[in-house]
Amino acid sequence: MVITLKQNPPQDDVNRLHKEITDAGCRIHACIGDVYTVYGIEGDTSQLDVKTIKANKAVHDVVRIVAPYKLANRLFHPEDSVIDVDGIKVGGKEPVVVIGGPCSVESEEMVCSVAKKVKEAGGHMLRGGAYKPRTSPYAFQGMRTKGIMAMLEAKKQTNLPIVSELMSADKIEEFEDNVDLIQIGARNMQNFELLKEIGKRTTKPILLKRGLCNTIDEWIMSAEYIMANGNMNVILCERGIRTYETSTRNTLDLSVIPIVKERTHLPIIIDPSHATGDWKLVESASLAAVAAGADGLIIEVHENPDYAWSDGAQCLKPEKFHNVIEKARGIAKIVGRDIL
Amino acid sequence: MVITLKQNPPQDDVNRLHKEITDAGCRIHACIGDVYTVYGIEGDTSQLDVKTIKANKAVHDVVRIVAPYKLANRLFHPEDSVIDVDGIKVGGKEPVVVIGGPCSVESEEMVCSVAKKVKEAGGHMLRGGAYKPRTSPYAFQGMRTKGIMAMLEAKKQTNLPIVSELMSADKIEEFEDNVDLIQIGARNMQNFELLKEIGKRTTKPILLKRGLCNTIDEWIMSAEYIMANGNMNVILCERGIRTYETSTRNTLDLSVIPIVKERTHLPIIIDPSHATGDWKLVESASLAAVAAGADGLIIEVHENPDYAWSDGAQCLKPEKFHNVIEKARGIAKIVGRDIL
Amino acid sequence: MVITLKQNPPQDDVNRLHKEITDAGCRIHACIGDVYTVYGIEGDTSQLDVKTIKANKAVHDVVRIVAPYKLANRLFHPEDSVIDVDGIKVGGKEPVVVIGGPCSVESEEMVCSVAKKVKEAGGHMLRGGAYKPRTSPYAFQGMRTKGIMAMLEAKKQTNLPIVSELMSADKIEEFEDNVDLIQIGARNMQNFELLKEIGKRTTKPILLKRGLCNTIDEWIMSAEYIMANGNMNVILCERGIRTYETSTRNTLDLSVIPIVKERTHLPIIIDPSHATGDWKLVESASLAAVAAGADGLIIEVHENPDYAWSDGAQCLKPEKFHNVIEKARGIAKIVGRDIL
Amino acid sequence: MVITLKQNPPQDDVNRLHKEITDAGCRIHACIGDVYTVYGIEGDTSQLDVKTIKANKAVHDVVRIVAPYKLANRLFHPEDSVIDVDGIKVGGKEPVVVIGGPCSVESEEMVCSVAKKVKEAGGHMLRGGAYKPRTSPYAFQGMRTKGIMAMLEAKKQTNLPIVSELMSADKIEEFEDNVDLIQIGARNMQNFELLKEIGKRTTKPILLKRGLCNTIDEWIMSAEYIMANGNMNVILCERGIRTYETSTRNTLDLSVIPIVKERTHLPIIIDPSHATGDWKLVESASLAAVAAGADGLIIEVHENPDYAWSDGAQCLKPEKFHNVIEKARGIAKIVGRDIL
Repeated sequence: MVITLKQNPPQDDVNRLHKEITDAGCRIHACIGDVYTVYGIEGDTSQLDVKTIKANKAVHDVVRIVAPYKLANRLFHPEDSVIDVDGIKVGGKEPVVVIGGPCSVESEEMVCSVAKKVKEAGGHMLRGGAYKPRTSPYAFQGMRTKGIMAMLEAKKQTNLPIVSELMSADKIEEFEDNVDLIQIGARNMQNFELLKEIGKRTTKPILLKRGLCNTIDEWIMSAEYIMANGNMNVILCERGIRTYETSTRNTLDLSVIPIVKERTHLPIIIDPSHATGDWKLVESASLAAVAAGADGLIIEVHENPDYAWSDGAQCLKPEKFHNVIEKARGIAKIVGRDIL
Repeated sequence: MVITLKQNPPQDDVNRLHKEITDAGCRIHACIGDVYTVYGIEGDTSQLDVKTIKANKAVHDVVRIVAPYKLANRLFHPEDSVIDVDGIKVGGKEPVVVIGGPCSVESEEMVCSVAKKVKEAGGHMLRGGAYKPRTSPYAFQGMRTKGIMAMLEAKKQTNLPIVSELMSADKIEEFEDNVDLIQIGARNMQNFELLKEIGKRTTKPILLKRGLCNTIDEWIMSAEYIMANGNMNVILCERGIRTYETSTRNTLDLSVIPIVKERTHLPIIIDPSHATGDWKLVESASLAAVAAGADGLIIEVHENPDYAWSDGAQCLKPEKFHNVIEKARGIAKIVGRDIL
Repeated sequence: MVITLKQNPPQDDVNRLHKEITDAGCRIHACIGDVYTVYGIEGDTSQLDVKTIKANKAVHDVVRIVAPYKLANRLFHPEDSVIDVDGIKVGGKEPVVVIGGPCSVESEEMVCSVAKKVKEAGGHMLRGGAYKPRTSPYAFQGMRTKGIMAMLEAKKQTNLPIVSELMSADKIEEFEDNVDLIQIGARNMQNFELLKEIGKRTTKPILLKRGLCNTIDEWIMSAEYIMANGNMNVILCERGIRTYETSTRNTLDLSVIPIVKERTHLPIIIDPSHATGDWKLVESASLAAVAAGADGLIIEVHENPDYAWSDGAQCLKPEKFHNVIEKARGIAKIVGRDIL
Repeated sequence: MVITLKQNPPQDDVNRLHKEITDAGCRIHACIGDVYTVYGIEGDTSQLDVKTIKANKAVHDVVRIVAPYKLANRLFHPEDSVIDVDGIKVGGKEPVVVIGGPCSVESEEMVCSVAKKVKEAGGHMLRGGAYKPRTSPYAFQGMRTKGIMAMLEAKKQTNLPIVSELMSADKIEEFEDNVDLIQIGARNMQNFELLKEIGKRTTKPILLKRGLCNTIDEWIMSAEYIMANGNMNVILCERGIRTYETSTRNTLDLSVIPIVKERTHLPIIIDPSHATGDWKLVESASLAAVAAGADGLIIEVHENPDYAWSDGAQCLKPEKFHNVIEKARGIAKIVGRDIL
């Protein structure tokens, strides 16, 4: 952390600043110039709050040199984390994984049927929404517990691990018992009370989606919340950010892949379906993601997209999903990876 | 709702579309041109899902004419809603209200002292964070229940109604019993499970902040969630949106004031402190908000901003807060309002 | 400028860095810590390029302390600049000015008629587009020279100074001869060749609009371009920035007013018409701008907005324009200003 | 185009609307419902201005069905355009092209040396900035004519066609005579006067970069400007858009590739250097672009990036550039393309 002082700062405020820094166990190296003074701060600066320091009247500006996250930080944990999702390994040099399935679970029959198609097409896990975050209170809110049970049946028939979104802390036990990869949706990325609870109450792998307008560092800090509360099994998932462009549902930011891999040791997978919102754009985005180094893809698959209860416009049919996996397989090899 | 069909749409898909629309109790007026066909849909179209219809292969495009919210909609409720917060009326032609107080409650002594200053300065309610949404798990997370108790003591001494942020459904009873205006923060604006619960389990007034990157219509839909679940006492609060500009913490969007008042009957107040993130910008933003027609202001006030445990850089001292209220009073008169 | 070095930087790169800094006439104060080294750089750092320094392999990060603009900088020119537009003073403690007129000049008759209404309503200058930046090559591109001549006639009849947009350097003489306040539109804010030419070839006052997605500092740097080439008469104009919100044409960022006034000595006026794109929002935005401290307003006025050749949806009728001025007058007084 | 009327619209305004539409040679198909009336408009609606129609008091809303561009529109020109750049073909099923070279031409010696390395590495064209758009008037503005001459010498030695940015209409002849692919930079994407001039005065291929905050449709409309004025040889170039994320210089939007190819027949190439602003991210972005279907890449290459006069942080060294091309070659094959 580097702190620049104002010219002629009040001595009281300087003293208070010194105390605050040393109380946190950090050291100050002062560099006193003619016009301004710069402090280099060393030690565990994650204990120091940039905004509090900025509020000190003696301070002109504060810049972090070391990121404020520790458990997620590549610096303190140089090896890639590989997360085990019911036997399927995600991250590091492991093969790229492909997750497929419907936006919403619509019935047991439907999800079992899709699951078989996902498996035949080469998919490795089954996604399906049982609890649905819908913008409108009048829209279908998901089959809830029945949806989870339907996915369990699909797992029994296909052996595919299941991925589903958790929306509130009172369902953690239900997910802990039944779901293999627990998704935290974009809208809950900074629902800190929920992050704390899943850190404390489950060690099941967590798929943490990036918020619609959250920076990469805020996203990593949300992973840090889960980890600091006890659950180290976090997989990050980019699903597009909100920009002024309206031709796509969101703007997929693939530069997060090398950046996340530089800053953290966590795996990262890409959701091209929510990012683009248009099935015609999903293949292009999926191949780009694998070329950019993604550890996995999560793609919406539906047998009859135009009959889907939600997000039909962005679903692939199973054949198309199979084609995407086959092309992605070739690209994975070129970037030094494989697909299971 | 207006639906444009593709050229030569598959008859099956057209039939299915017709069924979907009529099943929802809506009527179709078809306008058949040489090149394309347009359907005007009438009836309660809030039951129809734009994305599902778009997924139909027969459909080129869908546009809503009537907004998908009903309870919050000015169209079906032409009079302004006036919300009573423990005796203080907010909205309609009522005087503009000013809420002041610290970002975080730091001790009972501190919050009681600020509360007196807020009252002396002309403020009408006391804000204070007891449960704090912090980006870092290592940052101060609030005094929690003790913070709420400290605010109650401050209320006892000053008679100011209290405003505080609720972060999880398991605290609803605590807030129902003790807090006069329950804030839902920007990060939880689309925490739909929480919105449903506060709709069902309390009728205390809710202060619903706009999410960092949510549209005005998404924000109104979140109000609709609360209302559709039984709590009609919603006040909206703009606190800045996230843009590319880094000179301010967020970009305050004051055009929401006339837009919200046209689309809904709900009161709207402005938070210039979080919007700007810089106390030097708060007066300018506060006066602009009142000139633009806001029903209230919520401003961070601290006796020693540079000692604040959070967000000190954006707090006003009590004297400055008083000055802002005095100038705002003059402006309120010019736009046909008053300040209590 | 503060430069943080990497750990164990290559000595060659360090030497080169030193040379680069001292060659530019700046001094280095080194602060050598256990983990990293920080350089405080003093002197005229506007000669140093942040990106070039960042490319040096020895460098971890670079932060500017002093802004890279000099002529526009409040630090080196503490008094407010007051710009004289054909006798009307803009900025400092001068009264707030109000500019009104049509988006496009449609005929001499039309612009003369509007001009009289603008004057009667209390406006101080006449705006009118003769050269029009239109997104489509098939849209009306303006009356060009005939439009400028029509405005001159309107000026003769009303004595209102005229404001019009310049789109290319080959028309500078035409504008120098005829226009009182030369507007550079948002789309040309970083047309650097044009900025240089208007700096060199005219001393007429320039109204520099902020680009749709330019930061405040980029905008001030564009003013610096004009000033560094010889024309000190720059007035800044905020007209809304592009965000994800689609309810308004752009998002009006009023926090620029106090920020521009802190960083520079230049006047700033606000364009609520282009910012909102909707006449129903113009009054609210105009009053907010004056309350926030604007030095002026530029508002589209048309006698028959729904017959306008461009941007009719955002035009005020003369009576409404008059009402806005009257309310703005009251607000100006409260913030210590006047309206002519 | 679909126009929705208001309830009980004034008959005068309806008549005017009819006249406006029929005067433009379009036909109206009216669909009269109980609550509102919808007009389907057929014919060449590019002559109709959405904003003008919206300003009509009878009108509730207007939506375009057919895009307002014609010459660039895939609908009216189904085959891919292949643009010939001094013998190298770009677009359609032609091999993916790779353009390399320095941000700024620094000397004849330097650019000739880089050109040889670009050629050896497998690049097909040489880029180099002679006229530089710099945010600061105090930064190096380019070698200008001398820079163009230096590139010509490099072309003589390597036979690589040259690409350089044109910033003002008075240099069109210089570029027409010497440059093979004339770049219009992001900041001039809506410098309409310049677009018209290059449409009229040259038929050399144009590389049209997307503006920092321009929508895909605005970008295509700028291509339409050039084409409508006579120059059909337009190649589009995505270089990242501005968002709230600060970890990268811009956010690279690769979904534009399939979208541009659906809406237009023009080739599209990607600039990963300006998009990311960081050489460490360039390989990942380049491979992603080719996987997504790009027709080419334009990459900054410098022999000593940390000595570069501009943008050194985002330059690749020649060896790294070679590696990127080799991996891209493999990916191109998988998506049905080749690299020369």
